[in-house]
Amino acid sequence: MFRPQIKILDCTVRDGGLINQWQFNDDFVRKVFVALSQSGVDYMEIGYKSSEKNFSRADHGAWKFCSEDDLKRIVGGFEKTMKLSAMADIGRIDNEDIPKKSDSALDMIRVACYVKEVDKAISLAHHCMEKGYETTINLMAVSKVLERDLDEALDDLSKSDVPVIYLVDSFGAMYSEQIHSLARKYISALPGKQVGIHTHNNQQLAFANTIEAIIAGVNVLDATIYGMGRGAGNCPTELLLSFLKNPKFDIRPILSIIQEIFIPMKAQTEWGYHIPYMITGILNEHPRSGMKAMAAETLPDLRQFYEDLRDDTQLD
Amino acid sequence: MFRPQIKILDCTVRDGGLINQWQFNDDFVRKVFVALSQSGVDYMEIGYKSSEKNFSRADHGAWKFCSEDDLKRIVGGFEKTMKLSAMADIGRIDNEDIPKKSDSALDMIRVACYVKEVDKAISLAHHCMEKGYETTINLMAVSKVLERDLDEALDDLSKSDVPVIYLVDSFGAMYSEQIHSLARKYISALPGKQVGIHTHNNQQLAFANTIEAIIAGVNVLDATIYGMGRGAGNCPTELLLSFLKNPKFDIRPILSIIQEIFIPMKAQTEWGYHIPYMITGILNEHPRSGMKAMAAETLPDLRQFYEDLRDDTQLD
Repeated sequence: MFRPQIKILDCTVRDGGLINQWQFNDDFVRKVFVALSQSGVDYMEIGYKSSEKNFSRADHGAWKFCSEDDLKRIVGGFEKTMKLSAMADIGRIDNEDIPKKSDSALDMIRVACYVKEVDKAISLAHHCMEKGYETTINLMAVSKVLERDLDEALDDLSKSDVPVIYLVDSFGAMYSEQIHSLARKYISALPGKQVGIHTHNNQQLAFANTIEAIIAGVNVLDATIYGMGRGAGNCPTELLLSFLKNPKFDIRPILSIIQEIFIPMKAQTEWGYHIPYMITGILNEHPRSGMKAMAAETLPDLRQFYEDLRDDTQLD
Repeated sequence: MFRPQIKILDCTVRDGGLINQWQFNDDFVRKVFVALSQSGVDYMEIGYKSSEKNFSRADHGAWKFCSEDDLKRIVGGFEKTMKLSAMADIGRIDNEDIPKKSDSALDMIRVACYVKEVDKAISLAHHCMEKGYETTINLMAVSKVLERDLDEALDDLSKSDVPVIYLVDSFGAMYSEQIHSLARKYISALPGKQVGIHTHNNQQLAFANTIEAIIAGVNVLDATIYGMGRGAGNCPTELLLSFLKNPKFDIRPILSIIQEIFIPMKAQTEWGYHIPYMITGILNEHPRSGMKAMAAETLPDLRQFYEDLRDDTQLD
């Protein structure tokens, strides 16, 4: 699949940081930065842009905040061939926390929101655009949203200036047919914009669903190295690079860093396909109960875990 | 997806045995048998039917041979609600090694062959049918086969009496578009027959490709519990049961046995997504070099492993 418009955004540090509250040391973040630059990935999402009024540095590592000092410590001295992105969650940041683009190492701010917050997201994204950034809006958890509410949000987004809107399978609940039909819906509701895709791997479908989105016309693709991310993780960058035949991509720096860092890290930290995440995925639920099950000293009875969550879901 | 014609064949013991030379104890095989029976799976493939002239019991467990004594030890005393299958490889078994169906606990013999052996496979399958068995022919490694040779094999198979022909992605190399187009080719070349699918998970696409095959009209589906199988393993039975909405399937006995047996077993035995298998998959190569890399005391340099295999491939 060689389509020159396709862009890859690697969000290893941002989504992977949801596992450890972004407590990565500088060496890790710099090695990820260098490997991604060498591999030809278009954007690296290095963390969240959050207000220090809302979160403490005692509990959260530097990449929850992405201060300019922290960013400079990582990217300073390197010729920057790849753009840098940070994610902002609605309600966790104020406009004044965002510096002007000319004062920042960041190139893009991605605004994540639920469908009911879309107006706030558009307002924040417009503010970021005025400050000089590229922006996207990522509509989370749409597998739970009624079609009518989604259509209204897409209509609002179509009238905004935000150039990229993401289809996000937050719960890893979607099959290829849903991805295809939602991607087509986004594309036709958002003329003149690009559509992005962000998947989770609860059902081992993150990569397959990313391919399905590409087939449907989606051009902006999220991935993480070795699939590292919250819960079951994401579409693996190494698989996506190898699928895309664009000669600008090189899988080899990713293979090296997987061996040096990610394989040892995965032996300590249990992201990826695990039955509690699979169960939240098939039941279209937030992974939090799965994360609680995985964090416990011993796994709960999985049959019971499934039955309980299924019965809770039926009472929704 | 509720299509009453769909049948699931679980080949955990047969494909999983490729990891440990079928050295499973009776307790394991019986628990798998009971869990699969309770889950509503249609067929359990319990091993290979191989000639004891060709393989020794010193090196291979009972399920390399599937003798009637071994089978009776497992299934004796249970009301049999699920059919039993064994696989036969061309060249590794003689006609006289196969008892009459009326003397056997087996219901089906699946003949695995390469495209160039299709005539031998048809002959062996016809012999099994004469002895009273259901049969399939599983055409292996078709991702390496020229279209013209495949068309000729399908033409031969269309004239045979064998009722089920399998599309097999032996190397885990195929993307959904190849699965779809090959499945459509098989279906139109084999009027009056059913088509089956057997996938490998080198690129985390085993489940997704099985769904794609269902969409294309394939009705006979291979899977293994927790994806256990050679190298990267197979389409996980638990994911497939949950995708299929047929009320006869129950995922819960599979969840219980995963917790009791497969999670501890996977901590010892490295099937599943690992970079050496991913590399053989993306390069469309037999997993043997990946299995050698995984079995070594330390993993080889993965970048070098990729470059070497890629360069070997280019010289093919």
